[in-house]
Amino acid sequence: MRLPALISLIVGPIISAVSSAQATLSSASTSSPVIKTTKITPSYWRATFSDPPLNIQGDAFFRDFYALVDQITGDPDVKVVVFDSSSEIFFSTHVDLLKPLDPNLWPGSPQYWDSITRLAKAPVLTVAAIRGIAYNAGAEIAAVLDVRFGSKEKAVLAQLEVGFGANPGGGGIELLCRLAGRSRALEVVLGANRIDADTAALYGWINRAIPDAQFEEFVDNFARRVAGWDHYAIAAAKKLINERTDFPTANQQQESFNSFLAAVAQGAVSARLKAMGAAGLQTNLNFEINLDEEELKFVGDGPWNV
Amino acid sequence: MRLPALISLIVGPIISAVSSAQATLSSASTSSPVIKTTKITPSYWRATFSDPPLNIQGDAFFRDFYALVDQITGDPDVKVVVFDSSSEIFFSTHVDLLKPLDPNLWPGSPQYWDSITRLAKAPVLTVAAIRGIAYNAGAEIAAVLDVRFGSKEKAVLAQLEVGFGANPGGGGIELLCRLAGRSRALEVVLGANRIDADTAALYGWINRAIPDAQFEEFVDNFARRVAGWDHYAIAAAKKLINERTDFPTANQQQESFNSFLAAVAQGAVSARLKAMGAAGLQTNLNFEINLDEEELKFVGDGPWNV
Amino acid sequence: MRLPALISLIVGPIISAVSSAQATLSSASTSSPVIKTTKITPSYWRATFSDPPLNIQGDAFFRDFYALVDQITGDPDVKVVVFDSSSEIFFSTHVDLLKPLDPNLWPGSPQYWDSITRLAKAPVLTVAAIRGIAYNAGAEIAAVLDVRFGSKEKAVLAQLEVGFGANPGGGGIELLCRLAGRSRALEVVLGANRIDADTAALYGWINRAIPDAQFEEFVDNFARRVAGWDHYAIAAAKKLINERTDFPTANQQQESFNSFLAAVAQGAVSARLKAMGAAGLQTNLNFEINLDEEELKFVGDGPWNV
Repeated sequence: MRLPALISLIVGPIISAVSSAQATLSSASTSSPVIKTTKITPSYWRATFSDPPLNIQGDAFFRDFYALVDQITGDPDVKVVVFDSSSEIFFSTHVDLLKPLDPNLWPGSPQYWDSITRLAKAPVLTVAAIRGIAYNAGAEIAAVLDVRFGSKEKAVLAQLEVGFGANPGGGGIELLCRLAGRSRALEVVLGANRIDADTAALYGWINRAIPDAQFEEFVDNFARRVAGWDHYAIAAAKKLINERTDFPTANQQQESFNSFLAAVAQGAVSARLKAMGAAGLQTNLNFEINLDEEELKFVGDGPWNV
Repeated sequence: MRLPALISLIVGPIISAVSSAQATLSSASTSSPVIKTTKITPSYWRATFSDPPLNIQGDAFFRDFYALVDQITGDPDVKVVVFDSSSEIFFSTHVDLLKPLDPNLWPGSPQYWDSITRLAKAPVLTVAAIRGIAYNAGAEIAAVLDVRFGSKEKAVLAQLEVGFGANPGGGGIELLCRLAGRSRALEVVLGANRIDADTAALYGWINRAIPDAQFEEFVDNFARRVAGWDHYAIAAAKKLINERTDFPTANQQQESFNSFLAAVAQGAVSARLKAMGAAGLQTNLNFEINLDEEELKFVGDGPWNV
Repeated sequence: MRLPALISLIVGPIISAVSSAQATLSSASTSSPVIKTTKITPSYWRATFSDPPLNIQGDAFFRDFYALVDQITGDPDVKVVVFDSSSEIFFSTHVDLLKPLDPNLWPGSPQYWDSITRLAKAPVLTVAAIRGIAYNAGAEIAAVLDVRFGSKEKAVLAQLEVGFGANPGGGGIELLCRLAGRSRALEVVLGANRIDADTAALYGWINRAIPDAQFEEFVDNFARRVAGWDHYAIAAAKKLINERTDFPTANQQQESFNSFLAAVAQGAVSARLKAMGAAGLQTNLNFEINLDEEELKFVGDGPWNV
């Protein structure tokens, strides 16, 4: 099946699945960026996910992300970009299921992996400063960055897609396999459970867990070190490390995304998402925080007692 | 040399090496299965190594294992299988050296790696719940499963084959290299020493170490999560992870097994095994528990003062 | 550009950069070996870096190292070689920048990676016993050995080359990518910061961190185990592990070394090294210990306020 046909097959169920949910915790408007960039110095930037409390990844997120990647890869001075969050609870979480995503923007669009790959190849070090929850697409956007630091007490990562009947489609499978290996990727993805910062560090999913009291200072010191070095040396070292290591291909990520689409196209998954939407998905903060537990209420074919 | 010729060359020395040992701690009969399967639910099974105290891998073990793999891979409902042990001391340990193994069953037979590979590719998650000692083939049968959890206090893994003059031949070298990398595989295999659960987790040999007081609840919760998800999603996610990662080939495992056979065929190793058999190998529980230390008494060409 | 041309282009700046530094902490003479070999038994050797306090890698170091590799790979009895240091502070550190290195000896010479590769393939287990600082080439010479144990309190590893405008060129990039993966290699190399033993173990850079009080006993026990086993079994197991894993090629290490040379050939880097030489590089012990902090004083194009 060609992808456009597949897309039209999918977008419908997603719309119907979530259209009953009226309110949303996501309040992004097109006028206010959901990723705000602060140039602390010309060579040290902060990119802050600024759609609290959830930092759901909707059209605005992807639009801002692609623009930011263009900005980073086109700037001659930037050496390090720290990605953080203005939310005290979430780093970033799953894609928006209330407003169907624009296929020109979502992780199935060619520019998604193209942008991520250009970032991975750029002579700039990207750092995820994870001080909250990073579920699903939120964990994936962290995984595609070069380096990940997590708050020992506050960072929580998870790929919960299998729990609602699908699989990670935004590169999470590809990166988890490379960072954590087959056995731990299987545990994380098929268990669909929360992984605390220490375990994520043990698994290589994040570089390391830093006590929260020292987190900001640690990340800032690290970024300032990198920002101080010669751009030539940063570029040469990153180029060599890239040549010695492996980065997922567009074909791999697209295959996983198409698998996600095919899963969501199933009637049972569509009905489950609709029920989850009615029960609090994207409208209830506690539902979102406890998504790993909420999913247990929606196992099987329903109807679900919620 | 063709394999059948090699086999006849080898089986003899193994027999002569251990024939002097009369008693055995292994009491498996053909009528009582040494791997007992409990279907907790149609989708959540437990496979319990049930030949205490050692769970030595003899003909009965391999016969039961191959039958179990056929059962798992042929069942439409099973989603997760937890492998545990009825012994309070051993998860499972080395192959039986008292009764020479049937070449149609042992890890040199084609069905060994074929069964393991089918399990690795099956739309079922296999979990080793290691709450005791897993030496040699016991560690290898854990390593070939998808996920490994170890009791922080009770799990101990080791590949002690180099200590008696051979090398891991049941896939241990192949899996250790993938899970732990070259340097740690070299330490584990050439050191031939006990590795505690925390170190095994650090090395990626097990996924993680769980405090023993919480071990059963942790494993059961994990398995019940997986058992609850859509089979479709489990299958899709595991398929993608398998495609992104690497599993040892039959040729690789066979090469290691043939290297094991060639090592054991040496007169010095045969004599050493005979002496170890006389000193307590497979007949003395403490000898088996402390095998890593006992081996130090049998270094060199003998005679050994034991 | 052909390598000889490149070399002549580089040696000049290195000489001019450091010629103003008169004194040196390195006191190696040609008559006294800087790597001393002790045969504890015919099968268990110790190779001790013996140019305290820094164990800078100069011509004498490389000459001794190549001779030692010839000795190890030509000896029929040796099974394990532990590399340690006579210095209480440094395991080993960067290459000598005061005396320009002989291009026939330095890590750009073909015999460098050839020796390291022969050691990696030899039927001998090599162990780095790191009980002090291992910066730059010091960390690299540890990384190329088979196994690395670090003192929990005293071992510190770092690749600080980016901090003065270059990149690791002695195999550090290649090994770090294999041992620690892309994300952690990027953090270590682009952060150019000290990594303590626990973090290095988490990253797989060292096998594990051992409390210093138990360090010597642990390493000695480990080495004596290996030294006791059959040489045949050690050879067979290491051969299989080598076949299942990957070791950097000469082309890869040479590419990184040439990148190092090209970086150092820049006027800005040359001027910076000269300034660092005047401020204490290789002449002041505290400067060398705190090299990661000292580098922060020399960022940018100067002049530097030191």
